[in-house]
Amino acid sequence: MKKAVVLLSGGLDSTVTLYWAKNKGYQPYCLIFDYGQRHRREISSAIKIAKKINCKYHLLKFTLPWGGSTLLDKKTNLPQQKNAEEIGKNIPSTYVPARNTIFLSFALSYAEVIKAEAIFIGANALDYSGYPDCRPEYYTAFREVAKKGTKIGQEKKEIKIYTPLIRKTKAEIVKLGMKLKVPFALTWSCYAGGEPFRTEPFRVNPCGKCDSCLLRNKGFREVGIIDPLFL
Amino acid sequence: MKKAVVLLSGGLDSTVTLYWAKNKGYQPYCLIFDYGQRHRREISSAIKIAKKINCKYHLLKFTLPWGGSTLLDKKTNLPQQKNAEEIGKNIPSTYVPARNTIFLSFALSYAEVIKAEAIFIGANALDYSGYPDCRPEYYTAFREVAKKGTKIGQEKKEIKIYTPLIRKTKAEIVKLGMKLKVPFALTWSCYAGGEPFRTEPFRVNPCGKCDSCLLRNKGFREVGIIDPLFL
Repeated sequence: MKKAVVLLSGGLDSTVTLYWAKNKGYQPYCLIFDYGQRHRREISSAIKIAKKINCKYHLLKFTLPWGGSTLLDKKTNLPQQKNAEEIGKNIPSTYVPARNTIFLSFALSYAEVIKAEAIFIGANALDYSGYPDCRPEYYTAFREVAKKGTKIGQEKKEIKIYTPLIRKTKAEIVKLGMKLKVPFALTWSCYAGGEPFRTEPFRVNPCGKCDSCLLRNKGFREVGIIDPLFL
Repeated sequence: MKKAVVLLSGGLDSTVTLYWAKNKGYQPYCLIFDYGQRHRREISSAIKIAKKINCKYHLLKFTLPWGGSTLLDKKTNLPQQKNAEEIGKNIPSTYVPARNTIFLSFALSYAEVIKAEAIFIGANALDYSGYPDCRPEYYTAFREVAKKGTKIGQEKKEIKIYTPLIRKTKAEIVKLGMKLKVPFALTWSCYAGGEPFRTEPFRVNPCGKCDSCLLRNKGFREVGIIDPLFL
């Protein structure tokens, strides 16, 4: 069975991507990162999802001691827009410098060692926050790094980097998730978090106000189904 | 004063690169990595060197749990060549998949946050081990990632990535180091290590047999000076 490394944040997009890869016949190997994000709720979600789909995963831990993002500093306020249409016009303060480059470089290392054919990342450049490292041209550039910087690249083989959601609207992602039977209730998109690793019967709702919540809510609303996190 | 992030392993090349950047008028900010390498002697060297040059540094810690390199696994044997000329013909087992991509992506994050103009890395593609991520074409590819994947890149500014040693022989690097008054005695190149953080009066010599020692010795021999690590 062909192997793929999947970057799994525990959010809607990366989870749909994981199910997409599995559906395409890949054996997924997930990478989950604990990089000092302002909440750990998404890590707990990612682990639950990896277990649900019964795949191997690594939880990698590192810090970015230089900060530089409201997503890394709980003392700062998250940006709030009036509606999802306002999001993505500028690069918001939640941008974490070079985050996807860091994530992809670990994925590249992992993929080369386990001889995976592909890396999957749920980046999206349509209903998105405006992060530069979510756009197609960034992935084109990184594919070249993957070719030039690895042993496998020198052997004229290739580790493919797939971004299946990059040109989909959030509604299309929700629809795709429904088709793939993605357990939406296990995912977590809210930047604000909730309590660290709080489990049932405690129930923490997403804030509904941050960029990530607004975009997710837009997707579910447009499809016309209720997000199970708000049930 | 213009800032630069310098990747500092504590070896000969990265230390000469650090002194080069300083000499060019940059205020260096060093990044040192504890990534599970088979010895910690180089980390101790890197810290001493950063302190010696009186620059700010971060020691970042992470693991690569998938292994894939004799440099990550003390239970394996390091490759041994008869002489330095044999090195670099093939990619050796000390190759750590995607290591420089991981290092550079952290450097890119750090550089963007502190508004550094440049990143310096002591990669060398002449008297080197044959690692793909030490060659000029790899850096060309990574420069594009730095442009496309960062906020600063979208603002049409640029974080430059410099590899001042990339086309120098090891002898030329030693000569440059002499000119820049690099404290060779503080550097550590040997893959085999020695005791973790052993300090004076304990004295551990480099093995003299691994690829890294052979290349270093070649450089000093060609210049005609004695490596202070062997004094």
